[in-house]
Amino acid sequence: MHSLEKDKALQKRAELAFPAGVYGHMGLRMYPLPDNYPQFISRADGGRIWDVDGNEYIDFMCAYGPNILGYLHPKVEEAARKQMMLLDCATAPSEVMLELSEKLIEKGNHADWSLFCKNGSDATSIACMVARAQTGRNLIIMAEGVYHGNDAWCSWSSVGLPKHAKADIITCIYNDTASLEKAVEIAGDDLAGIILTPHYHELYVRQDDVTVEFAQRARAVCDEKHAALVIDDVRCTFRFSLGSSWQATTGVLPDLCAMGKTLANGHPVSAVTGSNKFRSGASEILVTGSFWFSSVPFAASLATIRAIEEEDTIARMNSVGQRLRSGLAEQANAYGLKFSQSGPVSMPYFHFDDDNEYKKIIFFCNEAVKNGVYFHPKHNMFVCAAHENDIDEALNRTESAFKSVKDKFGG
Amino acid sequence: MHSLEKDKALQKRAELAFPAGVYGHMGLRMYPLPDNYPQFISRADGGRIWDVDGNEYIDFMCAYGPNILGYLHPKVEEAARKQMMLLDCATAPSEVMLELSEKLIEKGNHADWSLFCKNGSDATSIACMVARAQTGRNLIIMAEGVYHGNDAWCSWSSVGLPKHAKADIITCIYNDTASLEKAVEIAGDDLAGIILTPHYHELYVRQDDVTVEFAQRARAVCDEKHAALVIDDVRCTFRFSLGSSWQATTGVLPDLCAMGKTLANGHPVSAVTGSNKFRSGASEILVTGSFWFSSVPFAASLATIRAIEEEDTIARMNSVGQRLRSGLAEQANAYGLKFSQSGPVSMPYFHFDDDNEYKKIIFFCNEAVKNGVYFHPKHNMFVCAAHENDIDEALNRTESAFKSVKDKFGG
Repeated sequence: MHSLEKDKALQKRAELAFPAGVYGHMGLRMYPLPDNYPQFISRADGGRIWDVDGNEYIDFMCAYGPNILGYLHPKVEEAARKQMMLLDCATAPSEVMLELSEKLIEKGNHADWSLFCKNGSDATSIACMVARAQTGRNLIIMAEGVYHGNDAWCSWSSVGLPKHAKADIITCIYNDTASLEKAVEIAGDDLAGIILTPHYHELYVRQDDVTVEFAQRARAVCDEKHAALVIDDVRCTFRFSLGSSWQATTGVLPDLCAMGKTLANGHPVSAVTGSNKFRSGASEILVTGSFWFSSVPFAASLATIRAIEEEDTIARMNSVGQRLRSGLAEQANAYGLKFSQSGPVSMPYFHFDDDNEYKKIIFFCNEAVKNGVYFHPKHNMFVCAAHENDIDEALNRTESAFKSVKDKFGG
Repeated sequence: MHSLEKDKALQKRAELAFPAGVYGHMGLRMYPLPDNYPQFISRADGGRIWDVDGNEYIDFMCAYGPNILGYLHPKVEEAARKQMMLLDCATAPSEVMLELSEKLIEKGNHADWSLFCKNGSDATSIACMVARAQTGRNLIIMAEGVYHGNDAWCSWSSVGLPKHAKADIITCIYNDTASLEKAVEIAGDDLAGIILTPHYHELYVRQDDVTVEFAQRARAVCDEKHAALVIDDVRCTFRFSLGSSWQATTGVLPDLCAMGKTLANGHPVSAVTGSNKFRSGASEILVTGSFWFSSVPFAASLATIRAIEEEDTIARMNSVGQRLRSGLAEQANAYGLKFSQSGPVSMPYFHFDDDNEYKKIIFFCNEAVKNGVYFHPKHNMFVCAAHENDIDEALNRTESAFKSVKDKFGG
């Protein structure tokens, strides 16, 4: 019996303690989760989480991305604990910050330097600053409706933003080369850079790989105009490559790459890596934050990179993701359900083909979470390497959720 | 013998691994430290740090603020380690996030809710968003040259900023009531809020308490205009009160308060607390970050607040700061030096009266750091409670630095 009694009591307290309950990506306003989802959890280990009522879930959100190795990876946590006893946030950084930068430079084919920060949007905003500082120009092109974080220039919401928040941004359509060229034309002599996610991984819609043509055209335009090609790899960090994602997927290299999420398997750190061509711009901007030199996340990140290499994490994660995809397809098929899976196998997105109001997918996820599988009805999900111990069990648990969809909505 | 041999070698590597060496508040561009300062450290404990060459310093920067109890405070670190083994960054928050919000509401006389984030500037920017969302207006008044973080609207540097970064900001002069009134007049019907630091704690200049008149006028204007009074308490969090700083210093309560730095004694978390009057605006904005629900800093913050109360930290820190101030004044006086100390005793700032080019203060700090006392020639400093074990030794070490100033520059 799946009870959320304690969770509901906490949710009531949260209505008072926060402006309107838990906010941000858990908030009602952004993308409300179905009724059977807990809002508070008490434990995470490997590929699983436990809520405050003791219910266990196989967690395919992976902290909305950061968890790539599995929660509580022993080597990462040991490195973090060891560093914690020496030095974390202090008056100067420690050598581990330097070592991590050197490691990212070694792994990123485009990278000659790094800057570290905390949020994903610190990294995307800093990349835009570097582009502007280096070129002396103002305009940034981004794709319409694409999430680059919550800074004012890229926020999805207009509520509370300053009037001029987006005055220095031009949009194009992702994967539409003609619209990119039109945006470049509009920018004219004032184009500082183009920022793109490595593939199209937006909410509510099927995920799309970048086309090689689009990636190459973006690269060529930036070369022609001496503007920066920025890849916002925050959500995809380390999921395809230890360098930028396009290093593995399209062969196109960026000038600047925003990284985050998995960088330290959940310990808080983000980064911008960049090429020598943009070094002088990067050296002239003023960026700093209270906790940006903290050593624990750097030590955890070095251990994360080591583990990814030693444990062949990327390949294992892809194999796990493929098993999940095939298993779900087989189950849906058996019930005659038109269930579509898009996105890379390690970052899957689900929808039912005839479900424009998301009723089936919400019902499906709500049934699955009752059975102990934590999916998301509207956001791309994430697989971690530790899920190899969980996939068979996850598929055992999803079977009846498909059956319920069939029973309720028909085949 | 104070050698920085290993540090200099790391600095050389840092020149390559970062755009131009260590950046941000340690960077050459922001405020270069004198020659004898190390850039990398290896250990921190209580009120002291050790550099990579093994030199030990009594650290009066306290991580540029976050260290209030002393580095590695046993109860805070124990709470952090315990939480780390259960849950840190995961798919949902844990109950400790709720408990921390309830604690801040209990302690802040203005506070009915909280929002948590990571950087200080996340908190100041979110406070401005809440002000705009609640009022439906656009303009924010801030004091000229005051540091509210590194987001584009408040950055000190213009390098790399979008053209319209400051288009929605009006400035006034801190502690100048007439200039505040003029700014309010200019804002007219479009005033969303006024953001102020609790006292004037800027670089390169003597620190000033806020005048009660200025604080009260800011409060009255916001009440008249139904605009938000925002206190940027990031640098001053918990240094005067567990609520907003003005709760202790002027009695004037803000509508919104940005907190950070010491909130978890160095673990990364910042916050906005606000009143019910601004709850609906706060509930409508979209704010989120990859690591904003991480549990370890919340657990560490609860332990920090408990420790501050149980160990009478604020009073002890003030007593330590007073001992430092008196001791330094006595030494300077003995050498006939016109040495001025300003700011609250727990956040001191030094200068020599006839030293417009900062030559004496740089020389003094450079001598002091060689002797194992880490001051800052241009930034306000910070005292922590653990310094009560260090003040006598610190004063032993500063004596000869004053003598050197006298020898070099005369009395």
